[in-house]
Amino acid sequence: MREERNDDKAPARGERRRRVQSAVTGMAVLKGLARMGGRATLTALAAHIDESPAKVHRYLVSLVEEGLVAQDAGGQQYQLGVEALHIGLAAMRQADPIRLAEASLIRVRERHEVTCFIAVMGNKGPTIVRFEEPGLPVTVNVRVGSVMPLLWSATGRVFLGLLDEREVLALARAELAAAAPDLRAMLAADDPIGQLRRDVRTAGCAAVRDVNLKGISAVSAPVFDYTGRLSAVLTALGATGGFDPDIDGPIGRVVREEAAAVSAQLGYAAT
Amino acid sequence: MREERNDDKAPARGERRRRVQSAVTGMAVLKGLARMGGRATLTALAAHIDESPAKVHRYLVSLVEEGLVAQDAGGQQYQLGVEALHIGLAAMRQADPIRLAEASLIRVRERHEVTCFIAVMGNKGPTIVRFEEPGLPVTVNVRVGSVMPLLWSATGRVFLGLLDEREVLALARAELAAAAPDLRAMLAADDPIGQLRRDVRTAGCAAVRDVNLKGISAVSAPVFDYTGRLSAVLTALGATGGFDPDIDGPIGRVVREEAAAVSAQLGYAAT
Repeated sequence: MREERNDDKAPARGERRRRVQSAVTGMAVLKGLARMGGRATLTALAAHIDESPAKVHRYLVSLVEEGLVAQDAGGQQYQLGVEALHIGLAAMRQADPIRLAEASLIRVRERHEVTCFIAVMGNKGPTIVRFEEPGLPVTVNVRVGSVMPLLWSATGRVFLGLLDEREVLALARAELAAAAPDLRAMLAADDPIGQLRRDVRTAGCAAVRDVNLKGISAVSAPVFDYTGRLSAVLTALGATGGFDPDIDGPIGRVVREEAAAVSAQLGYAAT
Repeated sequence: MREERNDDKAPARGERRRRVQSAVTGMAVLKGLARMGGRATLTALAAHIDESPAKVHRYLVSLVEEGLVAQDAGGQQYQLGVEALHIGLAAMRQADPIRLAEASLIRVRERHEVTCFIAVMGNKGPTIVRFEEPGLPVTVNVRVGSVMPLLWSATGRVFLGLLDEREVLALARAELAAAAPDLRAMLAADDPIGQLRRDVRTAGCAAVRDVNLKGISAVSAPVFDYTGRLSAVLTALGATGGFDPDIDGPIGRVVREEAAAVSAQLGYAAT
């Protein structure tokens, strides 16, 4: 920094561009080391990012000085340093599924003119935290703050299927015990909670038609974080008849793709 | 990369140095964004790292292209991107307390000629995983693989004091119930486990003299990871009389400083 400032007698545009290009090379070294698991020899790292060892070494010296990379005790290997860890921790604090999903909700609403929302697991159950409606919305009695049932909403079923917490299963059993006969009749007679969970795990998402709300269909897909944990559920809904809740239909695909895009932004690496 | 390769007609040494310096500027932008919590406006970020907004903007454009930084939906703020998260995850996988402590153990052994080791919490209790001895070691019946008592070793007391797991407390109660009267008599008569834990929490470390091993004194300090969790314990020991286990004595200070240095490398931010 000091150096560029000292000779910052308005460097030519091309020269400025080459300098930024050098920053990209530095980033490539750092990203390459991360892709290799965070630890590599100079030779292996240079081969991995397709640069000469001499050039990669010049950048590594700077990265070590900056604390982004460290050399191991024997000096044979380079590994990501404590500053890389701090950058990652700050990135994780910013990796907020609700904020990241907002852009997805707006896209789904604008392009497909459907009501959509994102829900997280609250202490009373799946809770809507962002809600987007098109110009001519269907009338539904859910909004931000609404708690959805685990057993009878598409949203709830994704949480039920993909979370293993004891509290979630306890909530589901309480719902089942308190259910009116017509709702209970919609579920499998034998092991209804286990059956719902297996269905969601197989499909990777959930859809309902006239289950939780009469005349309403919905399709939901999971948002995972970098630890692989379910962190939110993205749902689109509409009036049964005018809205196709098929998970492989146009809306179903969009919901699954948007949920997958948010997961990727959260650092989730699908296997 | 492509560009530098195209005009890589052996750039002058000074030019190469300036280019690497540009990589450092890129890193400074990334680290600055992390220090600001992972999210900032261009103006605030430029002020934070003491560079012009125009220059910082040039680097941010490249960082966004590389996925290390993202712009929020409104475009008003920059935040760390998913590649920054992946770099952090790789750095965390490399943040191994045992490997990092190895250099500390060797330093303590060489400079102070004392026996020292690092222990982690195993399923049977605190377990020694690296052990270093000077040329003329004291004879002790512990080695790599040895499980130390929670109540009567300095190592164990640090784990007892700083871990809150139910399993650890259960192990401590089992030790107490099985203790011979002379060992039991070394602890407080009233609430011995609670008293040990309070002492460790107050001191931040532990020392014993002729408690676990007759004629042996030891001093232990905690190694914390980036989540603030106790991940290992560093211990130095010697023959009582020739070895000062005072936590504020020369060896005590060294053990605490080396443990703190390993914690810092693990991303622990002492508050």
